[in-house]
Parts: sequence; structure tokens; C-alpha cells
Amino acid sequence: MADKKLVEQITSMEEDFAQWYTDVVIKSELIGYTSVKGCMAIKPAGYAIWELIQKQLDAKFKETGVQNVYMPMFIPESLLQKEKDHVEGFAPEAAWVTIGGQQPLQERMCVRPTSETLFCDFYKNDIQSYRDLPRVYNQWCSVVRWEKETRPFLRSREFLWQEGHTAHATAEDAEARTVQMLNVYADFCENVLAIPVVKGRKTEKEKFAGAEATYTIEALMHDGKALQSGTSHNFGDGFAKVFGIQYTDRDNKLKHVYQTSWGVTTRLIGALIMVHGDNSGLVLPPKVAPTQVVIVPIQQKKAGVLDKAFELKNVLSNFRVKVDDTDKSPGWKFSEAEMRGIPVRVEIGPKDIEANKCVLVRRDTREKIECSLDELEAKVAELLESIQKDMLERARAHRDAHTYVATNIEELEDILTNKPGFVKAMWCGCQDCEDKIKEKFAATSRCMPFEQEKLSDVCVCCGQPAKKMVYWGKAY
Amino acid sequence: MADKKLVEQITSMEEDFAQWYTDVVIKSELIGYTSVKGCMAIKPAGYAIWELIQKQLDAKFKETGVQNVYMPMFIPESLLQKEKDHVEGFAPEAAWVTIGGQQPLQERMCVRPTSETLFCDFYKNDIQSYRDLPRVYNQWCSVVRWEKETRPFLRSREFLWQEGHTAHATAEDAEARTVQMLNVYADFCENVLAIPVVKGRKTEKEKFAGAEATYTIEALMHDGKALQSGTSHNFGDGFAKVFGIQYTDRDNKLKHVYQTSWGVTTRLIGALIMVHGDNSGLVLPPKVAPTQVVIVPIQQKKAGVLDKAFELKNVLSNFRVKVDDTDKSPGWKFSEAEMRGIPVRVEIGPKDIEANKCVLVRRDTREKIECSLDELEAKVAELLESIQKDMLERARAHRDAHTYVATNIEELEDILTNKPGFVKAMWCGCQDCEDKIKEKFAATSRCMPFEQEKLSDVCVCCGQPAKKMVYWGKAY
Repeated sequence: MADKKLVEQITSMEEDFAQWYTDVVIKSELIGYTSVKGCMAIKPAGYAIWELIQKQLDAKFKETGVQNVYMPMFIPESLLQKEKDHVEGFAPEAAWVTIGGQQPLQERMCVRPTSETLFCDFYKNDIQSYRDLPRVYNQWCSVVRWEKETRPFLRSREFLWQEGHTAHATAEDAEARTVQMLNVYADFCENVLAIPVVKGRKTEKEKFAGAEATYTIEALMHDGKALQSGTSHNFGDGFAKVFGIQYTDRDNKLKHVYQTSWGVTTRLIGALIMVHGDNSGLVLPPKVAPTQVVIVPIQQKKAGVLDKAFELKNVLSNFRVKVDDTDKSPGWKFSEAEMRGIPVRVEIGPKDIEANKCVLVRRDTREKIECSLDELEAKVAELLESIQKDMLERARAHRDAHTYVATNIEELEDILTNKPGFVKAMWCGCQDCEDKIKEKFAATSRCMPFEQEKLSDVCVCCGQPAKKMVYWGKAY
Repeated sequence: MADKKLVEQITSMEEDFAQWYTDVVIKSELIGYTSVKGCMAIKPAGYAIWELIQKQLDAKFKETGVQNVYMPMFIPESLLQKEKDHVEGFAPEAAWVTIGGQQPLQERMCVRPTSETLFCDFYKNDIQSYRDLPRVYNQWCSVVRWEKETRPFLRSREFLWQEGHTAHATAEDAEARTVQMLNVYADFCENVLAIPVVKGRKTEKEKFAGAEATYTIEALMHDGKALQSGTSHNFGDGFAKVFGIQYTDRDNKLKHVYQTSWGVTTRLIGALIMVHGDNSGLVLPPKVAPTQVVIVPIQQKKAGVLDKAFELKNVLSNFRVKVDDTDKSPGWKFSEAEMRGIPVRVEIGPKDIEANKCVLVRRDTREKIECSLDELEAKVAELLESIQKDMLERARAHRDAHTYVATNIEELEDILTNKPGFVKAMWCGCQDCEDKIKEKFAATSRCMPFEQEKLSDVCVCCGQPAKKMVYWGKAY
């Protein structure tokens, strides 16, 4: 590894964004390919990001009363088939276990693509009284969907995620939880991942199989494509009726529960790469950077330099900090730290030590800052905070600069053909127009944003009276 | 749930230990049964224990340089079959995926029963130079073994675990890591789970499929049965040769790596139950108790009582503490807290408030202690520490009192028939004697302890010269 040149092998994103993405994923050592088609090996640098996502998101969940559980990874076929829309949505991509312990199974079981049916089966026995409600359970696990085309983090046959599944006494409680979790996701994306998102509702065509309503957060990648980054579903009492999940209410009557589910996946790592990355590699927001500060000793063989580097590491012990004391050249170390997206680099050499100073370099702007060693900790704290904030603002500015308005089909065509980004346009509410736009321009309705605007009176596609403003875009 | 009587339904452990175990697992709400045969749903009270185990063990791993990763859950059949002993050990219990995306797979894949083959396949490409070594990777995941007889936490078709897989430049490094991780497990069991363990090596008959040597920690349950609680395997360069995992050493020569793997599972929760539990339910060591202190208000409808209870909760905010303000009776709350194994109960009523005191009750000894409210935090801290320490000592005393010595077959038979526990006895080293003891007394060699003693000169079974002292026992 020490002998490879990391940076020269990256394709520039302007030349070929897809190849740039693959190069970054591999060169920054987030994943490795495996002999298991469509599945990836998440390497330490990639998994450490996921651990930071898990830790911070899980803490937010628990603040809202979420309890973690673990359900089986297998779903007997009869269970999957209970809810008609749900099975139609997931059966085509199912992986089936048909043999166990050298015997054909009496009933085949799919490896969970999502666990609504398992939670319903569980809640059916677990919930008896209004005192048992709400149930606000979540699990961190992997799921399997037999995709034909796969891409690291964005679409793979197995991926890691969390899936929350809740049961409530009333439709209002379920709706409130659905929106609450979408807001948790949106806040997390903005405040932790530095990714601004549009919150909204999916159209009937795009909603989750079996849901009454699906809410989504949509992010815009650097290439102008949309990425669905998290979803929250309100099932009403649809699954409860199919599975017979009833409780005895205060009035002693048997009633069906109302349910929700919500999830985010390792896809968020793909979003981090495509929103923040540049032609030198990853750029990680400090809050999810496994290493926040790398200290690179200059002329490290000179007496005192390495000692000083490790002394500074101690000074910075409030942060996730590493000294790169390998025998590579400083220039190589800089490139590697850039490739890995480490937010702050500290350069320290004999002359710096003499002058009681060091050089700080921001990964996001490459700005170089001289810093007295006495002020190092405060300055690094300040820098990390600025980087976190500036990355969000930069991503927001990019998103806003690539969000367009179309009021008729010609404008829509022009934008979707020539200007990668979101397009805001009015919609009549009928699926024919959605289908037509998808067919003609390969764009989909991303969401009906909560923050509605009235851009015109008529549907961008058919000219009939408009019902909703919709975000359209090409999507991953 | 509020209407069920928790305690009356528990079978006493003296009457039927297996039924007592099942009762505790269900009544303390650690798991629920599912429609997926042989798989369990881990409920919040159970999963919270696993989270505390994960958090503390993972921190210990990281102190020794472990990095977490994630490999695919599927193993193509050709990969599983590469190592002869390994496939013989695991194929009989494999679950096979034969259909994906509505198409029969060209090659069937098993759901990982363990991931040696996947890590080998990964390391083959990942490791090139001596600079890449050691690789000390671990993953937290679930695995599947198609068991016929299953019991919650002890043996189920799917279970949660961590599996570490490492690669080293030399046989010595691999051996050192194998022993290091066994020691991490042993220290964790003693210091966190309050479970004393015997460290030793498995016999050839009992070692892991494909390993050169398997080390184990063996714990003794309350009923005198042994539980293998964690294992660490040294593979030498056996897998490396089969999979072709080579690196270029400093001398520019291609060499095979040496490998290890090691794991503990949710079985540890079973150990917690069977080592510490009693006829009132769970008894949890403070370090893995999701709730360490429960505050039970007495006459909670009287003015000021509930306020005081929540005030004490704030005083105890350094601990995991809950106020039970449900509308159940205090006696019922006491039973429930006992069932759940909460280490310390705080009782606070109007008279206590008047006298500026409360009553503390230890779950492990039921000792009641009056405590001035001014000293509450210090006293609770002290109590939790004592409980943690005393539980280990009590378990150690029980283990020692149920560890016997046999110097001939008659003694061995007497003990294995009449005295549940470990039996220390000398062994000639041949599998015939192991097989005979297993056949006659349904006992297995648990391990050849690192701390050897010379109990006699001859094998307890055949009378031939003895090579090793072995712990024997009936095991879960």
C-alpha cells in the first residue's frame, strides 16, 4: 500500500463522475470487492464512518423513546405474502433459503428485505392493552435485495441499515411519529453529515409497498442527481388489519393499532462522498470523520520532531487525532490525508518547533493557517466547527444553485436535458403525467415538499389544474 | 402486562432448572417467540444487555488495535468448500440460498455460519506486503446454524456475535493474538459479567473445524453444567495455504500469513441468567444492567412523594436509573424489579421523606439498608461496586465448591452421576478415552486448563501414563 500512488489514479469528477465515485470509494479504502456478486466488504475506513453515524443517530433515537430489539433475519413465505402490496413490492428481489440442515425446507424463507411482516407477527402477540402502546422499536441490521445493477453504498444486494417499526393507539399518533422520525433524519443529515435535504411526501407511484404515506428526505449530489436519503412510512391500520394486531382500549373495546416504519442505510456514506468529495478524494464533515486531525511531521528524522508531533497529539486528545509517522514523504502523506478526507492537517517541522508554531490546513478549502502551539487546541476546535458549518452552507449553496423552476413542458425538458439538478414544477396529481415525465426525460418525482410554493396554476405536463408542487430529478 | 402476575409463574430452579431458565427468559421479557422456527426475537430488555456487552467489549478490542469491518452474509459454496475440515464442520448445519431475484442461482450460497472463508477470500487481495500486517479485523453481526434443538440464547438457528479474524507475519504473532483475545474475553467475563472462567485449550476432538488450536473459556452454571463462553482459534498457515494469502516480506520473499479467529455470542446472556439468577428472576451485575437503580415511590399519591422520587432520580443521574411511577402496588413493583434483575431498589415514602432518608435494597442479597438522602449518591455508588464484586466472588465460590477431582473411573462416574460440576482428572491424550467418557457419562472434555495440576500419574479412564489434566463436565 505504501508503494501505490493514491491521487494520480483518480478520474476527475468533471470527466466521469461515476468513475470518480468508484475511484474515491476504492482509493480511500472504504470498501473492497468480494467474490460475492453484488455485495461489498466494508473496510475499516468505511465502517468507522458507519459507526459514527450509528452512534449519533442511535442517541437521537433514544432521546425520542426508541428501544432497540432484534428480529430474525428470515421471513417464512406465508408471512411475507400476507400483505398484498408489500409482497408485490419485495418478492421480485427476494433471496430464498430453501435448504436448511441438509433438508429441503417445508416452507421456504426469504432473507429479510425489510421487516414489517416480522414486526407485525411479533406485535400481534406482544400488544394486548392500551398500556402496551406505543411500541417504538428499532433494529440495526443488514437486509438483502437481489438487485441486478449494484454500486458500492448506493445499491448493493446486502446493505446495512436501521429499521424502526412502531405501533400506536391512534392514527394521529402514528402520523406524528412518522413526521417526527423524518425530522430526526433531516436534522441528522444537516447537523451531522452537513447535507441539506428537502423534506416531503412521496407520490402514490413512488411510495413504499404497503404504506398509506411515505415521507422522504431528498439530497442533491454534486453531479446534480438526487439521492433519496431516508424514508418514513405511515401504514395506518392496514398491516394491523391483515395481521390482526389488536389491543383492548380504555373503553374495553378491541381496536387495531396504527403503525409506522422508517429507515436510513449505508447509502448515507455514498451521499457523503458525492456531496462533499472533490478531485483529491473524500472530504468528511468533522462529526463523522474517523480521524479529525492528522499530524504530519516534516523532516521527522531530525531530533525532536516526532516527539513534538506526539506531544501535539496529546494536546489534541479531545479530538480523534493521528500522527502519520510512517516512512513516506510528507507530500505523499498530505495526498493520503486528503484522499481520506481528514478535516484538518497539522504540519510540524524543525523550523516550526523553533518558532513555537505549526501550520494548519483545512481539507475543505485547503486554506493554510499559521498557529502558535500555545493556541493549537482552541484553534483546532474552532476550525473543526467552522468546517462542519461551512460544508453545510457550501452544500446548501450548491443545491440551491442547482434547483430550477419549470412552468411548462418545454422548460422542464430543457432543464432535465441540460441542467442537472432539482426541478420544481406544478403537478395535477395524476400518475399519467408522472409516467410521461419518467418515460420522456428519465426523471422521477422526488417528493411533494412540505414547503409548498405556487409556481403556476397548471400541471407542468398536461396543463390541467395543478394540485401540488413537486421536486423532480434524475436519481440514484 | 400490568395485569399479569410475574413471580408466581416461575418454576423454582431446584424443581426444574430448564423450566426455570425458560420462565426467567420469558417473564423478564428478554425474548419473545417468533413464527420463525428456532429463531428468537430479542426484546428491549434483552437487547439492552447485549448493547452494554458490545459497547464495553468493543472498547477493549479497540484498545488492542482491533478495527471493525463488515463482510457479506453469503458464502458461495465453492468458497466454503475450500478448506476440507472447515466445510465438514459447518456444511451439515448450513442454510442455503438457492434462488435470488426469481432466478435459480448458478451457485448456491450459504448464510454465514462463521466467516473464515470470507475473510480469507478478502485478505487474499487485501494483503500484499509485510507493511499490511498484522490485519486485526472484527465484525459484529448475526450468523446462522441450522440446529435441531434450540434454546433461547444458548442455541438458536440465528444468533448475534462478534467474530475477529486476523492475519500475521509469523506463527508467534498469531499465537500471541490468539491468547491475547482469550485473555480479553476472560477478563471481560470476570470484571464485567461477574462470571469466573477456566481458561484452557480444547482437545483435538473438541477444537474448531479447521483450526490448529482452539482456546476456550469455560464457565459453570448454577445447575453444575458447563457453558463454553468464548473461543479463540489459531489457524497457523493452514487457511492461508488453501486460499493463497501471501505477502512479500522484508527479504522480498513471498510468505504465507498466519491467522486467528475469535468470538463471543449472545450466549453470554444465557450465562448471566444461569450463573446469577435466582427463584425471583434475573440478577444482573451492575455493569451490564440496563437499569441499575429503580426508585419505587411508596404511597405515591400523597403530595410530594413522586416529586421526591424524581428528585432522587436527578441525584442519581450518574447511574442508569428509573422511577417506577406506574399505578401498580409497591409489592408488585418490587417483584417486577426483582424479576428484571435490577441491582438496587430505592424505596421512598412519606415517612422516609419526613426523616430525610430512604431504604435501599440489594437485588443479590436482598439486604435492606437505611440511607440518609444526603448520602444517597455515594451510598448507591458504593453498593453497585460491592454488588459487582460480591457477585463475582459468589459465583467463584459456587464454581470452586462444584469442582471435583477424580483419579479413577469409579470416582469419575460417581461425580458425573451424582455431583453436578466440573471434574478435574488426568488424561492420556487419546481420543478413545474421551469418546468412552462421553458415551458412558454424557460428559465432554471442557478444556486442558492453562493452569495444569498433577493429580495423578495416570489417565482417569485407561490407566495409561497421563499427559494433561483436563476439566470434564456436562455442558450446554
